[in-house]
Amino acid sequence: MTVARTPAVLETLLAALRARVSGPVLTATDDLQPYRRDRAADPGAGTPLAVVRAQSVTDVQAVIELAAAHGVAVIPRGAGSGLSGGASAVDGAVVLSVEDMREIAVDPVTMTATAGPGVLNAELKAAAAQHGLWYPPDPASFEFCSIGGNVATNAGGLCCVKYGVTRDYVLGMTVVLADGSVVELGGRLIKDVAGLPLMQLFIGSEGTLGVIVSVTVRLRAAPPPSSTLLVTFDDIDAAGEVVVALARTGRLSMLELMDRTTVECVEHEHRGGLDTGACATLIVQSDEPGEAGAATIAESAAICTRGGAITVSQARTAAEGQHWAQLRRGAIPSVEAAAGSLLLGDVGVPLPSLGRLMVGIEEIAREAGVPIALIAHAGDGNTHPLVMRDTSSAESIARADAAYGRVMDLAIALDGTITGEHGVGRLKRPWLAANVGSDVVRLNQVVKTALDPQGILNPGAGF
Amino acid sequence: MTVARTPAVLETLLAALRARVSGPVLTATDDLQPYRRDRAADPGAGTPLAVVRAQSVTDVQAVIELAAAHGVAVIPRGAGSGLSGGASAVDGAVVLSVEDMREIAVDPVTMTATAGPGVLNAELKAAAAQHGLWYPPDPASFEFCSIGGNVATNAGGLCCVKYGVTRDYVLGMTVVLADGSVVELGGRLIKDVAGLPLMQLFIGSEGTLGVIVSVTVRLRAAPPPSSTLLVTFDDIDAAGEVVVALARTGRLSMLELMDRTTVECVEHEHRGGLDTGACATLIVQSDEPGEAGAATIAESAAICTRGGAITVSQARTAAEGQHWAQLRRGAIPSVEAAAGSLLLGDVGVPLPSLGRLMVGIEEIAREAGVPIALIAHAGDGNTHPLVMRDTSSAESIARADAAYGRVMDLAIALDGTITGEHGVGRLKRPWLAANVGSDVVRLNQVVKTALDPQGILNPGAGF
Repeated sequence: MTVARTPAVLETLLAALRARVSGPVLTATDDLQPYRRDRAADPGAGTPLAVVRAQSVTDVQAVIELAAAHGVAVIPRGAGSGLSGGASAVDGAVVLSVEDMREIAVDPVTMTATAGPGVLNAELKAAAAQHGLWYPPDPASFEFCSIGGNVATNAGGLCCVKYGVTRDYVLGMTVVLADGSVVELGGRLIKDVAGLPLMQLFIGSEGTLGVIVSVTVRLRAAPPPSSTLLVTFDDIDAAGEVVVALARTGRLSMLELMDRTTVECVEHEHRGGLDTGACATLIVQSDEPGEAGAATIAESAAICTRGGAITVSQARTAAEGQHWAQLRRGAIPSVEAAAGSLLLGDVGVPLPSLGRLMVGIEEIAREAGVPIALIAHAGDGNTHPLVMRDTSSAESIARADAAYGRVMDLAIALDGTITGEHGVGRLKRPWLAANVGSDVVRLNQVVKTALDPQGILNPGAGF
Repeated sequence: MTVARTPAVLETLLAALRARVSGPVLTATDDLQPYRRDRAADPGAGTPLAVVRAQSVTDVQAVIELAAAHGVAVIPRGAGSGLSGGASAVDGAVVLSVEDMREIAVDPVTMTATAGPGVLNAELKAAAAQHGLWYPPDPASFEFCSIGGNVATNAGGLCCVKYGVTRDYVLGMTVVLADGSVVELGGRLIKDVAGLPLMQLFIGSEGTLGVIVSVTVRLRAAPPPSSTLLVTFDDIDAAGEVVVALARTGRLSMLELMDRTTVECVEHEHRGGLDTGACATLIVQSDEPGEAGAATIAESAAICTRGGAITVSQARTAAEGQHWAQLRRGAIPSVEAAAGSLLLGDVGVPLPSLGRLMVGIEEIAREAGVPIALIAHAGDGNTHPLVMRDTSSAESIARADAAYGRVMDLAIALDGTITGEHGVGRLKRPWLAANVGSDVVRLNQVVKTALDPQGILNPGAGF
């Protein structure tokens, strides 16, 4: 998609879009600006030719067909909450926003919900709750991320340690392919192996293979209230060891970690009562009912104490536990508020290497002279190092970039991943071959070429 | 792969295989016979040119490279326990058996196991158990099915209602592609979204995209002993309604159903104390510990009673509950022993339609004059209608075939699937387009062509 189109061709495309699409076709500079970047604030983001806010599946089809006919790239976009630059605009492309596609229908009989891609995760949860049901996946951004983006990145969250990731809830989807045709994949079935698992291929494909225009997800009965521990350590390595021991029980519904820098930022924003003196803070939850939950919490507290915790506090009420979890959910915005600008890492390792990863990240921060706040979905071995930078200083930016890269190199060296739940987007592509192998990157491209021979969909993202 | 090869070409291939492969290359008629069919006993199975028992990844590479160079198809085969003819031999093809690739290594630190594709599911469970760990997926055939085949079909089982299917446990794999190259996908990570989810594409691909030569699976802590109910109904529709209500609680670890015909066969074989007079029998388990498990069992018993159960019996010991579950696991062999020959269905529907499916299958059996025993992983909406036939009578075979087809038509009409966990293989292909849509079948072929342009891998199977 590097061919420069003549102005006449682009005018023809815009006229055709305006004629066929029911939603707004934005081209004014001020209107384009908010669609140039997602939350990753990609410095390499381009300026699109236009932004189309699709209102329907036929709008999506029209955008893809017309863009393909004119040789113009399409950048699919949900709520723009992505953290890897997967929705960064490309110069001259059409940004296809599905933010207005917000139909939502809960079927309490089959315990499923069908949602347009623009439905916010929180809206889906709320709609399910009206029927006493629950959609578990809970990215920390659940209040402002969309289900389409969740599926396109196979988003995770805090509940994953017990309840799994987005992939585990998707039963069916409707996808517009690169030729503008529409396919229905899956349905409302718990088990279904009819044909190749094509639906699985679109989950986590970051808009490179098709545009998801409807998703059917499985819902669960709402869990009972949680019991919660707040645990502090004066040694991050010890905290890592305790996480491994806690995760082995297989019974916790939340197992989150914040380092001291993170807690300082959270306390600065929220004054929530966390201990800014602790090296690491864990939030440990069980949502097992009654005696079983009490036993798990007691066993977990004992593991923490044996593992060298300084303090182990049990929430007196479910509300207090939710307050602690809420502080964790607000951690990235709190660090952002303190730092001004962040590079958001998403590295993961096999769980027993979590301590080595965290200690290594501390070393990188110290050696590079770059503050890195660390948050972890610790029970999954998935961490978010938040690399702080001063964007008014080229030298600070360069140091932060180097530290961000070293963190990914470290994760790769520990048999880990450069992205556990945010996606590769555009910002992590330089590390992908080192992570998965250049042969696997080539295999990505083979599949991409088969489904999108013209390379029209989200070029430059994902792999 | 329909081009007939000359005898000279085939002799060259056999000589090259013998030169490069360390394992046996079988060509004698008696040696080929056991490799012509899997447990589906496909009447259309061909006679292969040779069977190669690969001993290593390089053996698998050699077979694929040489077969491709000679334009000969490769039929990958695990334990041969498949129920859809996915491993039926094709005339003139090379059957590539991985039954001897049985390396197994449990890593208790990362709570993972890495297994060769020929490792039996039961062997994997046993190896995990030596470390106090558990590999949950449990096809009823777990004692004689292989992990390679489990992954290739995304096999299910009895525990899926709580613990999910094979896909939910695969963290990494090594695959030999159609060009003989080897790729490593995934690893030991709980969350990993680096690049397209190619590993997911191979899970359930039925040997059509590559040959899985190693699998890394996630293990869990072993669950506590189960509490079990045995429940009988005199009305299969009422049993279906109760299943829906029980599944909604989201707390059971087993929810299986057998109809009267199945129970009669099981009792004939095992004399296990089941009631042959009941129209439907449910086996209901909870593996929640202590009070929580007791509460779930009490609530389940109340749901059964309110739903019209004739008898609700609680196992006095965990062993008694396991005895009942074991009778269920032995059901297909018991029906096979009684019937002589079976067509094994694997249809599924959204759970609320389970009753309609089961009643409809009874009607088909009555109208067609064909006995059909029904077993169901009821909590997943996944049923196994076992269509009995007398293979000495062409008329009986034709009636059974027609009834088998009508069962799949019914599942499709109920927004269901022609296969929940066994795969399409060769026997269900005629129904696939009606099930998933001819556009989706074409998309299957697009992906197939991209990964196996020569069409060398398991032609005729899967889609």
